[in-house]
Amino acid sequence: MAIVILPIPGLPQIRPGDDLAAQLASAISAAKVGVKQGDVLVVCQKVVSKAEGRVVALADVEPSALARSWAARHDKDPRLIELVFRESTRIVRMDHGNLIVETGPGWVCANAGIDQSNAIEEGVVTLLPLDPDASAQGLRTALRGHLGVDLAVVVTDTFGRPWREGQVEFALGVAGMAPVDDLRGTHDMNGHELGVTVIGFADEIACAAGLAMRKAAGIAAVLVRGCEITAEPADAERRGGRSMIRPREHDLFR
Amino acid sequence: MAIVILPIPGLPQIRPGDDLAAQLASAISAAKVGVKQGDVLVVCQKVVSKAEGRVVALADVEPSALARSWAARHDKDPRLIELVFRESTRIVRMDHGNLIVETGPGWVCANAGIDQSNAIEEGVVTLLPLDPDASAQGLRTALRGHLGVDLAVVVTDTFGRPWREGQVEFALGVAGMAPVDDLRGTHDMNGHELGVTVIGFADEIACAAGLAMRKAAGIAAVLVRGCEITAEPADAERRGGRSMIRPREHDLFR
Repeated sequence: MAIVILPIPGLPQIRPGDDLAAQLASAISAAKVGVKQGDVLVVCQKVVSKAEGRVVALADVEPSALARSWAARHDKDPRLIELVFRESTRIVRMDHGNLIVETGPGWVCANAGIDQSNAIEEGVVTLLPLDPDASAQGLRTALRGHLGVDLAVVVTDTFGRPWREGQVEFALGVAGMAPVDDLRGTHDMNGHELGVTVIGFADEIACAAGLAMRKAAGIAAVLVRGCEITAEPADAERRGGRSMIRPREHDLFR
Repeated sequence: MAIVILPIPGLPQIRPGDDLAAQLASAISAAKVGVKQGDVLVVCQKVVSKAEGRVVALADVEPSALARSWAARHDKDPRLIELVFRESTRIVRMDHGNLIVETGPGWVCANAGIDQSNAIEEGVVTLLPLDPDASAQGLRTALRGHLGVDLAVVVTDTFGRPWREGQVEFALGVAGMAPVDDLRGTHDMNGHELGVTVIGFADEIACAAGLAMRKAAGIAAVLVRGCEITAEPADAERRGGRSMIRPREHDLFR
């Protein structure tokens, strides 16, 4: 069975306070993709952040001394660096002009995920949503009302990775499906037990959707169909994009 | 336009010396997917390694003192640990029972990518291909002969990541397409320049294919259609999966 990745075009510029679920529902209806149970709606963080008012005008930011000195040395905007510091819970690396920080519930990413591209207007940046799992759950509930279907929802952002060139999509918020595919205890085709295999399922879905989200084309929502999601675990610790963050005590690279 | 991920079933157990391209060509023909220019064939490393004879019987491995002591402390097979050491150019982390090493042209992964699952037989493990770019190019050339179509080919493996739970697919070998989508110098919808945006295109394709490669189902090949690949760069430094490895001097996490 094929898996199909359907871009959902036609989403208007989203502004703080907009009803994103209603806009997504119209765009999905207009795309005539015949939305159905088991489909995963992937929504890029930026429209979620805009709708939730997670935007800041750089003109309103007063940079600290450290932000000014780092920015001056690396030819950056000191107001942007100040925002990165404010959004960070910990600096992981501060080197080669890069700021890799811990932010939100424990994501590790460059510049705390603050983004200047496709902003509402020049000089306005988006911050990551405060709780993308709640955002995903909220969209899922509202979309059920609009479309009459229980979609899974994944809220993604584009992050860089250690060791690899190129950024890819990551799942920040997940609702309505298990974020990982836990194969521990199952067996391969030879009956060999798959001891340590946990698949980062929601991240793979995010990447698949990323193929359809070309920035310049402005595709902020994508439907992924046919990838056999499994039900959301009952255990709260294993639910949501938050559960995909490796706890610090098991992480060798923080 | 939708992107479609088509699993290619029916590949037999591959053994050293087998003509993998011929087997892939039969499986693709049998799948009746109407293969065409622009399609990306994603092949999992394991069948490439098997065909290329990159398999080792653990019974033939004499563990060193370090392999024995580490294995004893962490309840591992000392022969497997010895193979990890032999396949490594550098140990990146050796902690919490994990061996994260640098291997091949500079991949960083657990256990040097050595895999015990879906092996030819119990007690035989697969090593990573020596040169997956050459493997991908070889498959591409041979498949052009069999199918009369110029496919792009990506050879993938499943690696863990820092900071995240769950393993995902990564592109080790790439032929017939640009491995990254370099957006530097282009502009977003507002005319804002996308200063640092390089998309890890082949890794996103690998992840998309990963959705269809469920280990227990034994899907080792997947066709990804409709993702608008760009031509292989003329510059050798920007070609192949090898070019996706971040050079050590730009990497903050080695």
